[in-house]
Amino acid sequence: MANSRLQEQIAFLIEIDKVKSILRRNYLTDGSRRENDAEHSWHLAVAASLLAEHAAEPIDVARVMKMALIHDLVEIDAGDVIVYDQAARQAQKAKECAAAERVYAMLPADQGRELRALWEEFEARQTADARFAAAVDRLLPILLNFQSRGKAWREHGITADRVRQRNAHIADGSPAIWEFVQAVIDQALETGCFPERP
Amino acid sequence: MANSRLQEQIAFLIEIDKVKSILRRNYLTDGSRRENDAEHSWHLAVAASLLAEHAAEPIDVARVMKMALIHDLVEIDAGDVIVYDQAARQAQKAKECAAAERVYAMLPADQGRELRALWEEFEARQTADARFAAAVDRLLPILLNFQSRGKAWREHGITADRVRQRNAHIADGSPAIWEFVQAVIDQALETGCFPERP
Repeated sequence: MANSRLQEQIAFLIEIDKVKSILRRNYLTDGSRRENDAEHSWHLAVAASLLAEHAAEPIDVARVMKMALIHDLVEIDAGDVIVYDQAARQAQKAKECAAAERVYAMLPADQGRELRALWEEFEARQTADARFAAAVDRLLPILLNFQSRGKAWREHGITADRVRQRNAHIADGSPAIWEFVQAVIDQALETGCFPERP
Repeated sequence: MANSRLQEQIAFLIEIDKVKSILRRNYLTDGSRRENDAEHSWHLAVAASLLAEHAAEPIDVARVMKMALIHDLVEIDAGDVIVYDQAARQAQKAKECAAAERVYAMLPADQGRELRALWEEFEARQTADARFAAAVDRLLPILLNFQSRGKAWREHGITADRVRQRNAHIADGSPAIWEFVQAVIDQALETGCFPERP
C-alpha cells in the first residue's frame, strides 16, 4: 500500500487498543469492576468539554480534550500506579518516559511530536490547559469512588485527609470544581466511604 | 450548593458512566473480551483526530472528536444493535430517540441541545464532519475484527461481501480509508477470518 502515513497511523491505533486492558484502582459507579484507562480517558474528555466554563483561566477546549484522550497512553508499557503512592510514582517517571519514546515513535514524526508534547504539558501542569485537565482528571475518580461507596479508598486505606491533601491542586485548574469536590469528600466521610470514622 | 449548572453536569457525568457497561459485538484486538461503548468512543475520538488528513472534505476536527465522544450515549437506554441487522436497527431508532430525550435533558439546556444536535448530525451523515466520523466509526470494528481473527464475524455469520456492502459509505467520508479497509477485508478473507472460504 502506497499510503505509508496511514499505515503508521493504523499500526498506532492497533497498539493503543492495549489501553483498554490497563486497570485503574477505582471502580465503576456501580462498583461492579475496576475501570480501565480507555474508559477513564473517554470520561475525562467528555467531562473536560462539558465543564470548561468552570476553568480558572481561559482554556482551549479542543486541546484539553486531546490531552485527555492521550494522557494515559504511556501506561501501555508503564502500567497504572495509584496517585496516593508517591514513592512508586517517582519510580514510575522513568518507565513512562521510556514508554513515550516507544509509543509515540510509531506515529508519523509530526504527530508523534505533537502528542508527546501534549502529554509532557499535562504532566508538568504549567499551562492553563494542563491545570484544568489535571483538575478534571482528579474529579472523576473521586466521583466514582463516592458513587461506589468508597470501595477503592477503603481497600487501599486512603483517608479523607489524604484525598483532600493530594487533590488540592484541583483549585489551580478550577476553584468551582474544588469547592464541589470538598463537599463530596465531606459527604463521603459522613456516609462511611473512608476507612476512618467521621 | 449554589452552582446548579455544575450539579446538573455532574449528575450527567455520573449517568453516562453506564456507557462503560454497554457491550458491542466486536472483541478487543487480543480477542480476550467484547469491547464496550466507552472504550470504542475513546478509540474513535483518538482515531478521528489522527486520521483527519484523510477526510474527503475539510472537517472541523474538534467537532468530530466531540461527536465521537457522545455518539453512543443513547445506547444507555437503547442498547447496542449489530450494524448488520437492518431490521433491528429500524426498531432501534425509536428507542434511541426516547433515550436522547431523557439523557440529554439532564444537562443545562444549552449543552443538552448542542450534544443532541451533534448526535442527530452524526446519524444523518449529511455533513462532512458526520461523514468522516461515520467512516472512522466503521473502520475501527473492522480493524478489531481482523486483529481478533474474525471472531465476531464468524460468531454472527457475517460474510466478506456483507462487510463490503454495509461499509461502502466509508468512501463518502474518506476514500483513502475505504481503499485501506477493502485491502483489510481481502486479507481477512484470505486468512480465514470470515465464515466462508475464499
